[in-house]
Amino acid sequence: MTHSILLNGAWIASEATQTFQAANPATEETLPGVFPVSPWSEIDKVIQAAADAAKEMRGWPGNRFAEFLDTYADEIEARTDELVAAANAETGLPVSPRLKDGELPRTTNQLRQAAEAARTDSWRCPTIDTAAGIRAMFGPIGPVVVFGPNNFPFAFNGIAGGDFAAAIAAGNPVIAKGHSCHPETTRIFAEAALAAIEKTNMPKALVQLVYRTSHEDGYKLVSDSRVGASGYTGARHTGLKLKAAADAAGKPMYLELSSINPVFILEGALNERADAIADDFTGSCLMGTGQFCTNPGLVVVPANDAGNGFVKSVAEKFGAAAVGTMLSEGVRTSFAAGVETLQKAGVEVVAGGQAGGGTGVSFNNTLMIVGGSRFLEDPEVFQTETFGNGSLVVLADDVAQMMAIAESLEGNLTGCVYSDTEGSDDDSYATIEPALRTRVGRLLNDKMPTGVAVSAAMNHGGPFPSTGHPGFTAVGVPAALTRFGMLQCYDNIRPERLPVVLLDRNRNAAWRRIDGNWSKADVG
Amino acid sequence: MTHSILLNGAWIASEATQTFQAANPATEETLPGVFPVSPWSEIDKVIQAAADAAKEMRGWPGNRFAEFLDTYADEIEARTDELVAAANAETGLPVSPRLKDGELPRTTNQLRQAAEAARTDSWRCPTIDTAAGIRAMFGPIGPVVVFGPNNFPFAFNGIAGGDFAAAIAAGNPVIAKGHSCHPETTRIFAEAALAAIEKTNMPKALVQLVYRTSHEDGYKLVSDSRVGASGYTGARHTGLKLKAAADAAGKPMYLELSSINPVFILEGALNERADAIADDFTGSCLMGTGQFCTNPGLVVVPANDAGNGFVKSVAEKFGAAAVGTMLSEGVRTSFAAGVETLQKAGVEVVAGGQAGGGTGVSFNNTLMIVGGSRFLEDPEVFQTETFGNGSLVVLADDVAQMMAIAESLEGNLTGCVYSDTEGSDDDSYATIEPALRTRVGRLLNDKMPTGVAVSAAMNHGGPFPSTGHPGFTAVGVPAALTRFGMLQCYDNIRPERLPVVLLDRNRNAAWRRIDGNWSKADVG
Repeated sequence: MTHSILLNGAWIASEATQTFQAANPATEETLPGVFPVSPWSEIDKVIQAAADAAKEMRGWPGNRFAEFLDTYADEIEARTDELVAAANAETGLPVSPRLKDGELPRTTNQLRQAAEAARTDSWRCPTIDTAAGIRAMFGPIGPVVVFGPNNFPFAFNGIAGGDFAAAIAAGNPVIAKGHSCHPETTRIFAEAALAAIEKTNMPKALVQLVYRTSHEDGYKLVSDSRVGASGYTGARHTGLKLKAAADAAGKPMYLELSSINPVFILEGALNERADAIADDFTGSCLMGTGQFCTNPGLVVVPANDAGNGFVKSVAEKFGAAAVGTMLSEGVRTSFAAGVETLQKAGVEVVAGGQAGGGTGVSFNNTLMIVGGSRFLEDPEVFQTETFGNGSLVVLADDVAQMMAIAESLEGNLTGCVYSDTEGSDDDSYATIEPALRTRVGRLLNDKMPTGVAVSAAMNHGGPFPSTGHPGFTAVGVPAALTRFGMLQCYDNIRPERLPVVLLDRNRNAAWRRIDGNWSKADVG
Repeated sequence: MTHSILLNGAWIASEATQTFQAANPATEETLPGVFPVSPWSEIDKVIQAAADAAKEMRGWPGNRFAEFLDTYADEIEARTDELVAAANAETGLPVSPRLKDGELPRTTNQLRQAAEAARTDSWRCPTIDTAAGIRAMFGPIGPVVVFGPNNFPFAFNGIAGGDFAAAIAAGNPVIAKGHSCHPETTRIFAEAALAAIEKTNMPKALVQLVYRTSHEDGYKLVSDSRVGASGYTGARHTGLKLKAAADAAGKPMYLELSSINPVFILEGALNERADAIADDFTGSCLMGTGQFCTNPGLVVVPANDAGNGFVKSVAEKFGAAAVGTMLSEGVRTSFAAGVETLQKAGVEVVAGGQAGGGTGVSFNNTLMIVGGSRFLEDPEVFQTETFGNGSLVVLADDVAQMMAIAESLEGNLTGCVYSDTEGSDDDSYATIEPALRTRVGRLLNDKMPTGVAVSAAMNHGGPFPSTGHPGFTAVGVPAALTRFGMLQCYDNIRPERLPVVLLDRNRNAAWRRIDGNWSKADVG
């Protein structure tokens, strides 16, 4: 029996002629659920229902969306065991602490933070010019399509994750495109979302779900005139094709694509605390079998005894560490292809390099090295992403070469520098930092990049091709919400016709910029 | 003698094999200056110099850019007579009040507002999370290419206008692409900019100028890997081709394209003050010979005596008003083609409709009408832009049809509703407003859209295809600046390595968001 899709508040038998099943990567067995590849005819109905819902919700106050998000978070928590079991079966990610104690609370936390932003209107950036009689704020952009990735079945799921929460909090319906690796997890979320819709009397099409589409229908979906914007987290190749379709139609699309997250470890830092850094790096690189967007995939160290010692130490730790289960055979195939590309380009494998070593779909923890001069001869190929439990160490002749490597980097989500605490690395830091700063969204000191705090100051974004635009972040409230807003200016509008947050009286105590000053006060 | 281009602080003889000359639209005579169409070899040098300047300026404090902008504004004022004379000859726009008393002061005001934003770091949106140890702000995006339009030789000039000021204030070098209709005006600005660069010791390539490129080289320019972003104001056809090139390379490009700026005039308003509204509309539509981005090109009125009376009154006023000089033969050709397209689609011309009637390049003030049902049969063709002194009136059967017309509109910069002051139009307003609101960047009441105040609350932007992204405005400080910024997050960065605006001590008294609250205070 093929699972139904969630269309306008009802579970509808799909018209699909094609279906798919997920696999359990730990057992390498096909899972029983059969899910549809939706044809355009039903995607079209989903879009129309979303467009109608967007129309119905025009001008609705933020607390309506906040109530839904809070209720949805409660519904998710009530289904914790079911969600965790499904996600564990579909992704191989450990039940605890990862899924149950880490990712699920993070997901409900994100939903509740987004609810709070919606309730207080803090994301709208209300701006009032009393002398000119002009007021402005962000309003909803229209139906948002969210494509979730394979690696976070909860926190980035198209129907429950960060983009979802941001789009709803900004007042938009969401069309969720589940990831094909975890459809059952996504289905349970959809049930919870529907329950929350009903409990909070929201339009039935506030949240809809299609499990999968053809590539062509994906392009049609993100470029449809009834859609406001899209969010995508996943592989670069697919993301860029979707972006091209959306761009051609003038539809904003926010992407989080590949990133190798360079880490520069300066000589003084190695002399001071090489072991601690090696532990730090090993933990960060192998956590979640390395399947994080912010996994440190490129490490630059000095080509001297300290650097060589670091490589030796990490290689030993990689060999000694447990080998995790990968998310899918597709991930392993891509990882193996990446390692092969790097080997052909001249890297040396100093740990791992072969499939296997763990339960089910796995690949031995893999450490590779290459000289700095060789890297600079072909920086593009040496930036090939190996998404998984592997990393490439570049041995740089000197600080000038480290700087040249930094200048050769593509846009990345993160970049990190480890330096000593006594000041001997300060000149090197000052040399490398400006180049690195312009190429990464988040710069770190003495800390691995894998933790992405849900903070207003977080930037989970970066220059192309790590994302599609360097001015936006996918994580962090309120910034993540404004991606799904349109700027709405009110010029000489009669007071009784203004949105609540732009009235003289500041009913929800929102932060507003009044004549150049931020304030929670009333106007006048 | 072909004019030189401004490359890295020097006036360099162009390698051009092609040249062009502007024309005086009032006399229809070719102007004497001969300007180059720069080949790629010299554009490439310009880009490289800009990239080097961007590198040199990494981390520079905002006050350096503020000093330049202020000095540049002074230099422009010192050359007022020269600039006004050149612009008058090249555009036919009146010396006074338009050029000398309106557009020039607006231009220097924009430069000084941008300087103030740079000086105070107010545009950076500094965000501090003390608990997480994460801080973020906007930093420069890299070299910015600015394409100015034909219709504002000062206030939107690629080398002096709003995009220029915003890009510089955000800490970026600018590569200005002058408009081919006013190269001499642009050349004088470049001299003033160079003088300001020298007086403030800025990198020579902070501001560079090419007068014209081939279409293909334009696409290469906006998609070059060394460029950070581009701004474009002008015709839709050209803008979309540039956007496609920039999008494919992952380069942000901000566009201000066509807009017909719909105006809905409700029945009660006509009954109350038809004459005043007809005056208001006529003034707005014919101002600057209608060559404003925010010109009211579509007016929807009731198909009854009040609406017919309004049309009759406006037609008389159009006939009685002076016919202005258009910016160029190209503008007249496009305008005539637009009128022809509309006529073929079934509009009736009730005033004008023929070339001539004024000094030099001119076209009689043109008013057209069409029925609401006919409009809705083919809304796309009836939204053909006629950039110039003309407008289309739609006679709508009832409020439901007005609403349907609103729902059929493309994205526009502005949308306006006139209603009576006694409340008889309130229900109609409530019907039409939600549809109009989602389709325009700036909503107005009882006011024509042509005035674009330089206000923090202004949105000179709107949904596609009026611009490329509904979340951005080209006018208004600080919002216009953030377009040319990248989001830079600092995670666990040692305090001495933070940018000044993110330090605990708030040296420049910038507005910062600290743990969710906006403040000018120090941290802790």
